[in-house]
Amino acid sequence: MLNLEIQPVKKEFFDIAWKRLNNLTKPQGSLGKLEEIAAKLVAIYENPMPEIKKKAVLVFASDHGVTQEGVSAYPKEVTAQMVFNFLRGGAGINVLARHAGAEVVVVDVGVDYDFEKVNGLISKKVVKGTGNIAKGPALTRGDAMKCIEIGIEVVKEYHSKGYNLFATGEMGIGNTTPSSAVVSVLTNSPVEEVTGRGTGIDEETFKRKVEVIKRAIEINKPDASDPVDVLSKVGGPEIGAISGVVLCCASLRIPVVVDGFISTAGALIAYCINPAVKDYIFASHNSVEKGHKRALDFMGLKPLLDLNLRLGEGTGAALAMTIIEAGLKIYREMATFDEAGVSKSDK
Amino acid sequence: MLNLEIQPVKKEFFDIAWKRLNNLTKPQGSLGKLEEIAAKLVAIYENPMPEIKKKAVLVFASDHGVTQEGVSAYPKEVTAQMVFNFLRGGAGINVLARHAGAEVVVVDVGVDYDFEKVNGLISKKVVKGTGNIAKGPALTRGDAMKCIEIGIEVVKEYHSKGYNLFATGEMGIGNTTPSSAVVSVLTNSPVEEVTGRGTGIDEETFKRKVEVIKRAIEINKPDASDPVDVLSKVGGPEIGAISGVVLCCASLRIPVVVDGFISTAGALIAYCINPAVKDYIFASHNSVEKGHKRALDFMGLKPLLDLNLRLGEGTGAALAMTIIEAGLKIYREMATFDEAGVSKSDK
Repeated sequence: MLNLEIQPVKKEFFDIAWKRLNNLTKPQGSLGKLEEIAAKLVAIYENPMPEIKKKAVLVFASDHGVTQEGVSAYPKEVTAQMVFNFLRGGAGINVLARHAGAEVVVVDVGVDYDFEKVNGLISKKVVKGTGNIAKGPALTRGDAMKCIEIGIEVVKEYHSKGYNLFATGEMGIGNTTPSSAVVSVLTNSPVEEVTGRGTGIDEETFKRKVEVIKRAIEINKPDASDPVDVLSKVGGPEIGAISGVVLCCASLRIPVVVDGFISTAGALIAYCINPAVKDYIFASHNSVEKGHKRALDFMGLKPLLDLNLRLGEGTGAALAMTIIEAGLKIYREMATFDEAGVSKSDK
Repeated sequence: MLNLEIQPVKKEFFDIAWKRLNNLTKPQGSLGKLEEIAAKLVAIYENPMPEIKKKAVLVFASDHGVTQEGVSAYPKEVTAQMVFNFLRGGAGINVLARHAGAEVVVVDVGVDYDFEKVNGLISKKVVKGTGNIAKGPALTRGDAMKCIEIGIEVVKEYHSKGYNLFATGEMGIGNTTPSSAVVSVLTNSPVEEVTGRGTGIDEETFKRKVEVIKRAIEINKPDASDPVDVLSKVGGPEIGAISGVVLCCASLRIPVVVDGFISTAGALIAYCINPAVKDYIFASHNSVEKGHKRALDFMGLKPLLDLNLRLGEGTGAALAMTIIEAGLKIYREMATFDEAGVSKSDK
């Protein structure tokens, strides 16, 4: 399943894109990152005049046994409560996805709650909460693989329905803790340097969180050269599903907009499985969580926005979708110098 | 005319806004600048549940005598050619304003071209190009005042039609040169520190541009304590009109989204006339022009976006409008903890 065919994007499509961009009625390069976005889209879609059709934010929800260690500011019941909030359309991600014209797809991969047949929820529960990583592995290797496969399946299903731009999102009380563990192991960074305050914990809780992550790595001994081992030992279901989303988008040659810290931990696992996925990723924003920047730097990605976001859910990615579409519209809709009868630069 | 009644926004409206923001289903402050935007809108509109109705980008076009000195990469004919491009909908600002759901309003304040009765163009020509500031003043004081008044008039007219969010934009070959002169004088900064490469000039042209600006300041001796004197001596019509837009928005208690360097030079003139305008300004982006940051710092404003833009026209402001609306939608549309039945933080 992880042997998806993934190839780097081709330089020739960048050449095609820049030829057009440099002929639009503006000084060359004057639309900065919007032009880079357009060129990247041309290369990803392998289409000289690409079109964004339907857009979806895929939100994977899961619980985490490590909340027993008191690492979060919120009780774990909030994961399920927020799933209901997503389904009713009242959460931050609902608002920002509507603003971007994107659908919100909510997938239960590991929430510790029986949703029964709740309307609108995609039920792919692998576990009812992970194991407490401070005491043992989060997931079995088999369950970790299942989570990745769920991410792949969901993208394939929506792609077959005509969606060709995906953003990643997640909900899981406590999930910055496994994300820091994953980023620490895969980027070989000290835990202190990749651990932040999540939804807003105090100094005492922060110190405990760092200790818990160190213990989790010590006890579970994840193999840094085996991303699936890292995912299963110290990761979590939504992180695994997001890595599957990234792998599948890259294999389908469609872009994936990666949200903040937890999503980027998922993208990092995909990157460590196959670094070519990088070409298909748009890093949406620079979150307040400091491990986020470390993971992006490791992959050589630069975020589009810097708005001090730290909510997760896919909110930064949804907002970045609006910027990405702006870049494509510039490319598609601006007049060329010839069309507009505008003189080119003297220089 | 410049004695418009402008008052700072009231703290009590920030309190109202933050009370609601802190009760929405997210960790407090986790939507970062989006929340700050929402609170600022509540305070500006003096409305606990504000609504953005119609939006317009006001694009003021003018020519500049200083192009005789060879300070731009483009021939001055491009100003008029781009006005036609705006009216046909093919320019960058047209694309990005459509993306933001905003109308583009094009106003001729000083283009050196006879447009006759061109459909869609608002004709308010004060001069046919300014004087060459390297040799004398750009405008008479009376004409400078007329330009400010035009900005005020256009906002009043569109506000009476139901528009309540404006962005500033401009077109004028050579207009980074007067903008640098204005910013240098009003912020008391050395010319070298506020002069950039405009639409993309080479090293030789850049050196000439710096010399020209220094000469303009030396010859015209603008009085830094008199913003209208600075505008008339070394500014330009679109810069004046934009200062009028900022003054009028502040007096009407509606927000104004200020684009890049040239627009910010206009905002700076308004700020020097009445510093209270600052509360009504959203700085849209951090342009590549280095004088831009100096002017924003002088006013104590921080830009929302950093996308390496240097096109002008209002493009960065149009894009920022989409972020500003996102901030307001968060405020208006997210569920509260009570509405959603979500538990609040333990801490």
